Amino acid sequence: MRPSGRALDEMRPVSIETDFTKHAEGSALIRMGDTHVLCTATVEDRVPPFIKGSGLGWVTAEYGMLPRATNTRMRREASAGKQGGRTIEIQRLIGRSLRAGVDRVALGERQITVDCDVLQADGGTRCASITGGWVALRLAVNKLMKSGDVISDPMLDPVAAISCGIYAGQPVLDLDYPEDSEAGVDGNFIMTGSRQLIEVQMSAEGATYSRDQMNTLMDLAEKGVAELIAAQTAATA
Amino acid sequence: MRPSGRALDEMRPVSIETDFTKHAEGSALIRMGDTHVLCTATVEDRVPPFIKGSGLGWVTAEYGMLPRATNTRMRREASAGKQGGRTIEIQRLIGRSLRAGVDRVALGERQITVDCDVLQADGGTRCASITGGWVALRLAVNKLMKSGDVISDPMLDPVAAISCGIYAGQPVLDLDYPEDSEAGVDGNFIMTGSRQLIEVQMSAEGATYSRDQMNTLMDLAEKGVAELIAAQTAATA
Amino acid sequence: MRPSGRALDEMRPVSIETDFTKHAEGSALIRMGDTHVLCTATVEDRVPPFIKGSGLGWVTAEYGMLPRATNTRMRREASAGKQGGRTIEIQRLIGRSLRAGVDRVALGERQITVDCDVLQADGGTRCASITGGWVALRLAVNKLMKSGDVISDPMLDPVAAISCGIYAGQPVLDLDYPEDSEAGVDGNFIMTGSRQLIEVQMSAEGATYSRDQMNTLMDLAEKGVAELIAAQTAATA
Amino acid sequence: MRPSGRALDEMRPVSIETDFTKHAEGSALIRMGDTHVLCTATVEDRVPPFIKGSGLGWVTAEYGMLPRATNTRMRREASAGKQGGRTIEIQRLIGRSLRAGVDRVALGERQITVDCDVLQADGGTRCASITGGWVALRLAVNKLMKSGDVISDPMLDPVAAISCGIYAGQPVLDLDYPEDSEAGVDGNFIMTGSRQLIEVQMSAEGATYSRDQMNTLMDLAEKGVAELIAAQTAATA
Amino acid sequence: MRPSGRALDEMRPVSIETDFTKHAEGSALIRMGDTHVLCTATVEDRVPPFIKGSGLGWVTAEYGMLPRATNTRMRREASAGKQGGRTIEIQRLIGRSLRAGVDRVALGERQITVDCDVLQADGGTRCASITGGWVALRLAVNKLMKSGDVISDPMLDPVAAISCGIYAGQPVLDLDYPEDSEAGVDGNFIMTGSRQLIEVQMSAEGATYSRDQMNTLMDLAEKGVAELIAAQTAATA
Amino acid sequence: MRPSGRALDEMRPVSIETDFTKHAEGSALIRMGDTHVLCTATVEDRVPPFIKGSGLGWVTAEYGMLPRATNTRMRREASAGKQGGRTIEIQRLIGRSLRAGVDRVALGERQITVDCDVLQADGGTRCASITGGWVALRLAVNKLMKSGDVISDPMLDPVAAISCGIYAGQPVLDLDYPEDSEAGVDGNFIMTGSRQLIEVQMSAEGATYSRDQMNTLMDLAEKGVAELIAAQTAATA
Repeated sequence: MRPSGRALDEMRPVSIETDFTKHAEGSALIRMGDTHVLCTATVEDRVPPFIKGSGLGWVTAEYGMLPRATNTRMRREASAGKQGGRTIEIQRLIGRSLRAGVDRVALGERQITVDCDVLQADGGTRCASITGGWVALRLAVNKLMKSGDVISDPMLDPVAAISCGIYAGQPVLDLDYPEDSEAGVDGNFIMTGSRQLIEVQMSAEGATYSRDQMNTLMDLAEKGVAELIAAQTAATA
Repeated sequence: MRPSGRALDEMRPVSIETDFTKHAEGSALIRMGDTHVLCTATVEDRVPPFIKGSGLGWVTAEYGMLPRATNTRMRREASAGKQGGRTIEIQRLIGRSLRAGVDRVALGERQITVDCDVLQADGGTRCASITGGWVALRLAVNKLMKSGDVISDPMLDPVAAISCGIYAGQPVLDLDYPEDSEAGVDGNFIMTGSRQLIEVQMSAEGATYSRDQMNTLMDLAEKGVAELIAAQTAATA
Repeated sequence: MRPSGRALDEMRPVSIETDFTKHAEGSALIRMGDTHVLCTATVEDRVPPFIKGSGLGWVTAEYGMLPRATNTRMRREASAGKQGGRTIEIQRLIGRSLRAGVDRVALGERQITVDCDVLQADGGTRCASITGGWVALRLAVNKLMKSGDVISDPMLDPVAAISCGIYAGQPVLDLDYPEDSEAGVDGNFIMTGSRQLIEVQMSAEGATYSRDQMNTLMDLAEKGVAELIAAQTAATA
Repeated sequence: MRPSGRALDEMRPVSIETDFTKHAEGSALIRMGDTHVLCTATVEDRVPPFIKGSGLGWVTAEYGMLPRATNTRMRREASAGKQGGRTIEIQRLIGRSLRAGVDRVALGERQITVDCDVLQADGGTRCASITGGWVALRLAVNKLMKSGDVISDPMLDPVAAISCGIYAGQPVLDLDYPEDSEAGVDGNFIMTGSRQLIEVQMSAEGATYSRDQMNTLMDLAEKGVAELIAAQTAATA
Repeated sequence: MRPSGRALDEMRPVSIETDFTKHAEGSALIRMGDTHVLCTATVEDRVPPFIKGSGLGWVTAEYGMLPRATNTRMRREASAGKQGGRTIEIQRLIGRSLRAGVDRVALGERQITVDCDVLQADGGTRCASITGGWVALRLAVNKLMKSGDVISDPMLDPVAAISCGIYAGQPVLDLDYPEDSEAGVDGNFIMTGSRQLIEVQMSAEGATYSRDQMNTLMDLAEKGVAELIAAQTAATA
Repeated sequence: MRPSGRALDEMRPVSIETDFTKHAEGSALIRMGDTHVLCTATVEDRVPPFIKGSGLGWVTAEYGMLPRATNTRMRREASAGKQGGRTIEIQRLIGRSLRAGVDRVALGERQITVDCDVLQADGGTRCASITGGWVALRLAVNKLMKSGDVISDPMLDPVAAISCGIYAGQPVLDLDYPEDSEAGVDGNFIMTGSRQLIEVQMSAEGATYSRDQMNTLMDLAEKGVAELIAAQTAATA
C-alpha cells in the first residue's frame, strides 16, 4: 500500500549521531530514513532586545536546505537574496516548539540558536529538525550545567515531532516524500515526553477532513513521538 | 473574566460590508469587533507557471497591515524591503484555506488573488481575512458566472475561520488582542459549511495542552464557524 | 467636455471623516470623489538622528496604495521588495508639504509620522493625501496640546493641495483618473490657508505649456485650495 | 550678498566638453562652476515593454553621484543596495524633461538612455544633468541621422534647466551649494529654446512664498535658460 | 613549530567519501583534517544565455558555509539577504578552476553546477572545495558517459588545489585555521595532474614577499597537489 | 602582433592627473591608454568595529564603473540593487593591496577610503585603480602630515599593479581590452617600489600555464611596475 512497503503506523528507521561537528556547543545528525538533518546548538551571552534585562533566556532556530538535498536542485536562498516563505514558516515552528520545552528562567539571560540544515531530504524535514534540534539543545545545555553557568536544569521535558497524513484514503504515520507529495491532508504534531501537545498543524490541500480522522491521526502521532523520545533519550544518555 | 466581558463561548459582533471598494471584482470589509479587514478579489486570465496548460484555476492571497492598524506603529513592510515571517505565514494560510473550498476544474484556467489588508487590528486578523476573503472570492466568482465565463459554480462550500485559545486557564472563543497577547495556547480552526476541517493550527508559547483541551477548543470553534458562515451567507445572498 | 460632466473649475465632492481608526493619535478618511485615502498620524518621542538634541520636532510621511485600489491590480510593494520611484516621490512631497505648515520649535523634539494609504484611487491621490494628512496631523497635535505635552500651537496655517492640468486643450481643476491619463500637462499646487505657496509641481509629458497657461492653472488652484481648507476647518472644528 | 560674489541674476560659468568618453554614442562633460556632470547617451534597438510594437521611441535617464563628489563622502548606492529617494526623483525628472523635447515618432522604435554621473557637486546637479544630458542626446541622434537610421530630426527644441530660489530674502539665479543649503525656497525650471515650460518644481522647506515671488523667479529662470541654450548650441554646432 | 606538530611540508590527512548524498548526479564528502566539505554535482540540460546554441557546455560552482561550521556562529547568508564578498570570490574561483579541466565541446550543451557546502571548517575550505568538487564532477560525468549522453570523456586532467603560506617566517604547506589566521602571506595554487598551473593567488596582508619565497611555496604546492590527485584517483577508481 | 601594435613588453602611455576633484583629501585621474579611473581618498576619524580602540588605522577601497564606461552599456549596480561578484572581488583586492603599503600604527586610528570609479574602460581597470589609488592615498596622507594629525609617515613603499598574460601564445605586458578578451591566461601583479610582491593573481580560462611561463610573466611585471612607480613618484613629487 505505502510506496516504501511500511505498515500504516510504521515509522522509518531513526538514528541520531551526536557530536557530528566539533565547534558547536551541541550537535547531532538525525536520520529518519533518507531524510538527514544536521542540527547544531550555539550558546551566546546576548539575548534579543525585547527580553534584555528580563533575566529570561531565549531559544531560536534557523533552517536551511542544501541546494541538492532534493531530487532536483533548488536555488540557494543566499543567492536568491532571501529566505523563502516555507523556510521562514519552518524555522519559526522549530524555535517555538523547542522553547515550549525550556524553562527560560532556569536558562538565564542567554540565547541558544539551533541551526537545522538538511543535507538530504525525503519528506518530514521539519519534524526531523525539531527532534534532532532538541538533542543538540540538550547537549548544549548539558555543557552549560557542567561548567556551572546554569545550575537548575532548564530542560522541562523532551520535545519531538512527527508528521501524519491521509494517503490513498488511509491515515499513515511519518510520510516520506512520495507520500507527502500525494497526500491531500497532512500535518505535524509536536509533543512532549509526557504526551502534552505543543503544536498541531494539520492542513488540507484540495481536500478536507473530519474530526474522526483528526483523532485517528493524533493516535498515530502519539505512537510515533513515543518512539522518537526513546531515541532522543538513548542518544543523550 | 474576559477583558471584554464576553462569555467564554461568545464571539465579537461580526459585520460584513460588501462592495466597499469599486474596482475589484469582489470586495468586502469585514469587522470582527475592532478588527477591520478590507478584502478584495482580483480575477486575472493568467495562472502561475506550474499549472499553465493544465486547465486548472488558482486562488492565492496576500496579506498586509497598515502601519498604524495597531496600537503602536509598525514599520511599513514595503519600506523595510520585505514581508516579515508572520505576514508570509498568514498569506500562505489564507490562500491554502480558500483553495480548499474551490473546485479548480470548474474555475478554469484563471487566477483569483485575494488581498486582505488590515485597516484596524484587535486580534484575529488572519481569521477575519479568511472569512472576509471568502466573501470577496464568492462575489468575484458570481461575476464570472453572470458573464458566462464560468458555467458550473466552483465554490464547493463556504470557508470560515475562528481563533480559540486558553486564556487565564479557560478555553475561550474568538480572542481579542488583550487575550491573544496573554494566552499561552491559541490557534486557528479553518472549517467548511459542512463542518469539515481544512486546517488546524494550535500553538503553545511557553506552555503545553492536553488532548482534552484540544477537543474543547474544537467544540468552541465549530460553534463560532457556524455563526460566521451564517454571516457570509447573509452578506452574499 | 469633462468625462465626469463637471465644469472646468469644479472640484469633485470632498468629505473628511475623522477618527476612522481608533489606534492612531489622529486619523481621517478623505474622499475626493472616488479617491479615498486613509490618513493616520502617529506621535513618537524620538526624532531622526540629524536633529537629535536640537529641540526641534519633525513631521514625515509615508504613502502606499492597496494593490487593488486601482482598476487593475498592482503588485504589492512589500512583496516586490521595495517602494517604487513614484511612491518615494509622493511621500517625500507629503512630508515636505506638511512640515511647511508646522512650527517645529513649538512642536518640540518629537516626530509625527503621517501615513497615507489609498483604499481606492481615481486620480489626485497625492493631493488628497496632503489635504487629509493635514487633518490627521491637526488632530494628533490637538491631543498633544490637550495633554499639555505641547503648550503653544505649532500648526501655523492649514495646508491643502489640489491638482490642475490641461485636458483636451482646456485648463481644468481637480483631475480624475480618466482626465489625468490623457492630460499632456498636469501638476499639483500645495498652498496654505493664507494663499501662500508651499510647492508647485507642473509637468508636461510629450507637451509644453506657456507662462499664461501656468497662470490660469494657478488661479484654478487657488479656488480649489480655498474649498479644501473650508472642508478641513469644518472637519477639525 | 551671495557667497560667491555673483549678482542676483548671474549664473556660474558654463562649459560643455563634448566627446569626453569614447564608447557612448554621445557624451558631454558639463561644468556649471564647480558642479561637473558626465553625461552619456546610449542608443539601443529595444524599447520598454509598454511601447513594444508601437513604432514610438523612448528616452530615459539614470543619475548617480560618485561617493566623494560631495564635501563629505556619501555611501555608494550600489553598496547600500538601492538608489535613494532623491536619486530616483532626479532621474525621473531628467527622463521626463528630455522626452518633452523629442518627437518619439521620428525617433522610431529605439531607446536612448542618458546617464548623468556627478563627478563633483556644488549645487544644481539635476539642472546640469538635464542641460548636459540634452547635449549627449543631441550628439547620439546626430549619429543616428548620419548613419541613416533616423531620417527626420526628432529633436524638437533644445531643453535646458536652471535652479532659482530665495536666498537671504532675495530671488537668485543658479544656486550653488552654500546658497542651496540655506535657501528656504528653491526649485528648478525646465524650459525649451522657445521659452515654453516643460516642468516647474518650486519647493519651500520651512517657509512659503507668494505668487509675486514665483513670477520673479520665473523671470530669472528665463534669463538663465537662454544662456544655457546658447552654450548647448555652441557645443553641438 | 606548527601548532599541529606537522612538518613544514606535511599535509593534513585527506579522505574522500563518494556518494555521501543520494540525489545528486555526483557527490563527495572531502575531509582535510577538520575541514569537511560536502560537494555535489548537478547536471542540467540548460546552459547560461551567453552560450546558448554554441554547442559548448558550462561548469559553475556555488559555495556556502553552515552557520556553525566555524568556531563562533556566523550569520546565515540566506538570512542576511546576500552572499558576502568572500563567498562570491570563492565560488567564482571554484567554477573557474573546474572549467579549466573540462573540454566544453566534449561536454556538450549542458550545465553542471558544483555545490560546495562546508559542514566544518578549519582552514583551506576553498582548496578542499575544488579538490572535492572535482570528484563530484568526475562522478557526474561518469554517469553521463554511462548513459551515452556524453561520448568522448570531457575530463581533460584532474584538478586539485592546496594552500601554502609563510607562517612564523617559514614556508608551510596546507595551512589550518590557527596558521591561516596568523600568516602574513598565504595563498592557493590550483594545478592539474600534469603539474600545469590553473590559478595562483598569493596575497599578503600587512606584509610582502620575495620571488624566492614565491618559488619555495610553489615547490610545496606541487608536492601537495600530487598527493591530492592520488586521493582523487583512488576515490573515483 | 598585438592589436595596438605595441611591443610585447610595452605598456600603454600612463598619465596621472592629481587633484582632479576638489572635495576629496586626495584625488587623481589615472589614464593607462584608454582606461581612465578617477581615484579619491577620503579620511575619516572612525575605524571599523573590529579594530576600534586598537590604535591601528584602516585603509579600504570601493570600485565602480560608470554604466557606459564600456563598449556596451552595463546595468548600473545601484539600480540592480547590489554590487556584482566582479566588483566585490576587485575592491577587496584594491583595499588589501593598498593596506600592504601602509604602516597602520603610524597612520593612527583613522580610516582612509579609496574610491576608484572607472570613467572609461579598455582593460586593466583594477591595476589602474591600485596604481592611481595609491596616489590619492599618498596625497591624503600628505595632508594629514601637513596638518600634524600624523607625525611619522605611514606610507612604507609605493604600491603599483600591472596585468600580464599570454596572448596569441606570447607573454605580453599590460593587456588592453581586445587582448584581455582573447587571452587564455592573464593576471595581475601587485608589487612595491622595492620589487617585493604583495599579490599575484594569475588565472587561466579554458587553458593552463607552466612555471616557466609564470616566470616570464613575472619578469614582465617587474618591468611594468618600475615604470608605474616612476609615474607615481613624478605625480606626487
